[in-house]
This record gives sequence, C-alpha cells and structure tokens, in this order.
Amino acid sequence: MEGPRRPAPAAGVARIAVDLLGGDHAPAVVVDGALRACSADAQLHLLLVGPHAVAEEIIAMLPDADRDRVAVHPVDGVVGMADPPMRAVRADTSVRAATGALADGRVDAVVSAGHSGAAVTAAVHALGRLRGIRRPALAATLPGVSGPVVLLDVGATTEAHAKVLAQHAALGVAYAQALYGIAAPRVGLLSTGTEPDRGDRARRAAADLLAAPDALSGDAVYVGLVEGYDVPLGGPADVVVTDGFTGNVLLKGVEGAYALAGGAPPPTVARAAALLGVPGTVVVCHGRATGADVASGIALAARLHRTGAADRVARSVSSATAATLGEVTT
Amino acid sequence: MEGPRRPAPAAGVARIAVDLLGGDHAPAVVVDGALRACSADAQLHLLLVGPHAVAEEIIAMLPDADRDRVAVHPVDGVVGMADPPMRAVRADTSVRAATGALADGRVDAVVSAGHSGAAVTAAVHALGRLRGIRRPALAATLPGVSGPVVLLDVGATTEAHAKVLAQHAALGVAYAQALYGIAAPRVGLLSTGTEPDRGDRARRAAADLLAAPDALSGDAVYVGLVEGYDVPLGGPADVVVTDGFTGNVLLKGVEGAYALAGGAPPPTVARAAALLGVPGTVVVCHGRATGADVASGIALAARLHRTGAADRVARSVSSATAATLGEVTT
Repeated sequence: MEGPRRPAPAAGVARIAVDLLGGDHAPAVVVDGALRACSADAQLHLLLVGPHAVAEEIIAMLPDADRDRVAVHPVDGVVGMADPPMRAVRADTSVRAATGALADGRVDAVVSAGHSGAAVTAAVHALGRLRGIRRPALAATLPGVSGPVVLLDVGATTEAHAKVLAQHAALGVAYAQALYGIAAPRVGLLSTGTEPDRGDRARRAAADLLAAPDALSGDAVYVGLVEGYDVPLGGPADVVVTDGFTGNVLLKGVEGAYALAGGAPPPTVARAAALLGVPGTVVVCHGRATGADVASGIALAARLHRTGAADRVARSVSSATAATLGEVTT
Repeated sequence: MEGPRRPAPAAGVARIAVDLLGGDHAPAVVVDGALRACSADAQLHLLLVGPHAVAEEIIAMLPDADRDRVAVHPVDGVVGMADPPMRAVRADTSVRAATGALADGRVDAVVSAGHSGAAVTAAVHALGRLRGIRRPALAATLPGVSGPVVLLDVGATTEAHAKVLAQHAALGVAYAQALYGIAAPRVGLLSTGTEPDRGDRARRAAADLLAAPDALSGDAVYVGLVEGYDVPLGGPADVVVTDGFTGNVLLKGVEGAYALAGGAPPPTVARAAALLGVPGTVVVCHGRATGADVASGIALAARLHRTGAADRVARSVSSATAATLGEVTT
C-alpha cells in the first residue's frame, strides 16, 4: 500500500478523524453522531476536526472516563454544500485537515458528512490515488435479500466512462472480498436491461472490457448486465458497477422508497459510503445524514480499519491486470 | 396535432390495439391482462395483434356478450427481448402492426409490453414525431406523498443531452397538465444534489436551458435540481426530468425497494409508461410485466385517449418556445 507509515496502534483501537463541519445540519448531527459512536465502541479514539467550541461541547457531554479518547484539531474553515469542491484543497478547511491527519498517520481513518465532492477532493489531495486508478469511487452497501450488495460509484465521479467503470469493478471486487469475505464476488454492470447491448455507449464499451477473460482478478466473475431491481433486492450480483451520477440517484431513490413504504422492517440502507481508490480509509456520509447515520459512518470507518480493508483493496488493485486498469485519459 | 384523421368513435369508447407478443412472459401475461381489462371496462374495444391462435384463446375465454368488443389483427412476427430494436420497423412484427393500426385510425391507442426500444422504434416509424421533438420519452408516474410525480425519460433515449432533457421537460409539463390537471407543474431536473452545479456536464447545460425565462410554456415553473429521494417521495416537483438510462435504473430500483419493503401499503408504481413525443397514444409496459400490469397499461391507454392527452401534449409542445425545442443535432 502506498501512503503514510505510522506506528501500529494498540490492538483493536481505531483512531478516527471526524470532520465536524460537513453536512446540511453540521455541526449538530456530527456532535450527536460522535457521542453515539464513543458510547457504542470503547476502543474508538476520535480526533475532532473543526471549531474548538464545537469540539469542547462534545467533550463536555462525554463521561469523564471517555474524555481521554477524544482529541481536538482546531480548524474553522468549512466547505459549504454550495461551495466548489476545489475549496477542499485548502489546509484551513475541516475536511482537508481531517484527511491531512490521516496522511500524517495521526489517525487510522476519516469520516466526513456532507459535500462528497469536497471529501473526495480533500482525500485525493492529501493521500493521492492508488496506482493505476484514475478516479476514485464511493461504495455503498445495500442489504439484499440474500446478502450485501456493494453499489459503486455513488457520487465520486459523475461522468460515465468505460475504463473508469472497469476500474471501479476491480475496486468493488476487492472491497467485497475485504469487508464481507465474499471470496468470489459476482460483478454486474448496471444497465436498462439484461440482454446484451442494452444501455448507452459507455455501458456497451464497459461490458466489452469486463467480459474479457482477465478483466477481474482472482475468482471474481462478471455476470453481465443487471437492472435497477437487482440493487435493493440483490440476487444476480454482489457488486454492482455504475457511474457516480446514476449510482447517487439510484441510492437516494431507494432510500426514498423505503422511507415512503415505512411499515415493514426498514432495511438499513447504508448512509455512509467508503471512498475507494485512495490509499487510506475515508468514509463519506451524505449531506442529509442524521446523528445515527454519522455514528454508523464512524462505525464503518472503524470496521474498515480493523479488517485492514484499505490495505487489502490496495494490494488487490495493484495485482489487477493492466488491461483493465490502464490509464484513463478522460 | 399531426397524425392520422379518423372518424370520431362513440362517446366513451376506447379502441386499444394490444401487442400480444411483447414481454418476457408473452403471450400468457398479455392474454391475462387483456381479459382483466375487458372485464373492468365495458367501453373498451380491443384489437388483438398477434398470432391468430392466441387471439382466439382470449376470445374463447370472454363471456359471449363481450366478444363483439374484440377484433383480431393476425400477425406472427415478434421482436424478442434480445433482438435489435430496428427489427420493429418490419410490418410483420406485432408491435409495428399495432402501431400501424393506430396510424391508420383503426384504434385510438396502442399497448405493448416488453422491448421498449422496439415499441419506441415502431411508434416513431408508424406515426412520426411531434414537430420540434428530436427524441421521444417514456413517462412513468409514481405516487408521491402529496400527489403524482411524473418521471421521464424512463428508457426511450439513453444518452443524456441537454437539449433533449429540456424538450422532455416540455413534454412532461404538457403530460402532467393533460393527465393530472396540474395547471402549473413544478419541474425538477434530477441530479446528485440540489445546489447549483451538481451533476454531470449534460445536467449543468440542461439546467442553464431550463432556467431561461421562457424555457417552459404557460404557468409551468422550473424549480431547479432535485435528488433521487424526491422521485418516490414527491414534494419539490411534479415533473422530474432525467435521461432514459438514469430514469430506467431509478424506476426499477424504486420498484425493487418496494418489493423488498413489502408490508406497508405497497404504493402502486406504474409499470406502464406513456410514450411522449409522437402524435398518438402509445403505452409501454415493461418486460417483466404481469397480467395486472398489462391490464393497468390498457387502462392507462384508455384514460389517455378519453382525456385527449395526446392532442393536448401535441398542442402544448407546438406552442413551446423555439429556444427550448430547437433541433437537437446529436
């Protein structure tokens, strides 16, 4: 794995930098989420990145015994939801400072809610990209009928491009193996039907790349085109690949449908997504995240750290074939 | 309205051509759907387009009194789900024969299940397009919390293009006015966030077109960007515009989520979509349609005919501004 060297933390400890200023309802929901996460996981150490007063508010609400698990990195700059993502390269923004702490080895992972473009920009700026990966992807997990479905990209890269889709398939495979222990993930390409040639130009080109014999590493298998149904329900594929525009719209549409359907055990659609393609563990919660969502994002970051997912994804990608992961020019 | 002249049918009568060979489970589900529709609507007259033996099976199952409401157009050619859409220009295919019956004025509307690309191709070949409309759109309706949400395109035109999106907004406005009586439809452009500049290049360009003062006719209002949640839940917009790739994936994803959520009153997501942009009433059910779905597609076609929706959409579009509806070159 490329990236920072750092001393091995105590066994089981996960040191998470939390961006206090990300999201529509920051910092209130982030404060709530941080408190929930601290209470749920005694091996969690938090670095609160944001205004000193907000961090002090969290610390004041913690039981005395928990306070030594929380440190503060004071910074006041924010990337608002309406700001351009490039603002996140500025060191005085909370999201860039949080990813900087990861790059410096002071934490094991970063969690940011809100402007996902800003989080992606800050992460790439601080950490760089995995070799051969032109554009990172955000991976969300949906609870299918028979197991988890990893959907990517849900918003990091909005333009559809065949080689990027193929690279993201490789990232999704590595993620499903590392986080869910799926030895031979089945990969589907999201389209408008399952018959060959359905979809747009980018999909037809990506299907050709993915159908090549050595397109996916190890035991992963490309199962062809899948449809919208297959993401919430699961079944044909463990990993579903699409562009960040379609994936973002689909994930939110599924969330909206669950919210409207109510009643039945509301499947917990992950409101936190893992950023893949960078050498490090970065979790992004969306702009409408609640305190519970932020807490589950922190829990996901801790789990990713403890399972060594980022290292495993990096190793897997570095062994993927040049055919699939060749440089993308647009 | 451009299109065929035909004698006025008896008041309330709706003459619907039904493609017996469309869909994964044709003809069984189409037979079932046609029988359900006949039984539900005494003013419905069906023209069964497909193999003689299949049509005779339907007629044999009808009560004697209903048989004079059903006629047969025997044709054996099929456009299978895996066939190229262009096959649907052949006069010996059921879908082209059905749209031909509409062009000739023998029926008031067409219903086809299955290969939506084939249905679109057959409709454009038989009927042409409305003047100024480069590409047709399929419009589906979802039951939002406070009223219907018209989503288009759900699969007719898969490549995203700003001018096509703007044209489809005009079609969606006219459809919402005609079918749902929404005098001043609120139009949203589907994207990855509500802040300006969210989304891909096509979305940013389409947002500029739609924000122009005269982009939408009459009292329609452009409300800006909306997100995936807003399609099943409704709220910000009555009409949500997106490309046919994203719309198709989203609609099926929402359906899958409802199927998984079960329990709660399962909102009836329309499994039938109206084809807009052609001079005539064409309804497309999707490839996995059940008999009940086909019946509701026939009912939608009858309703569209009785409300004069196709004529109203055509008139509305012909009065839309040249700025929005200028010829699209790609």
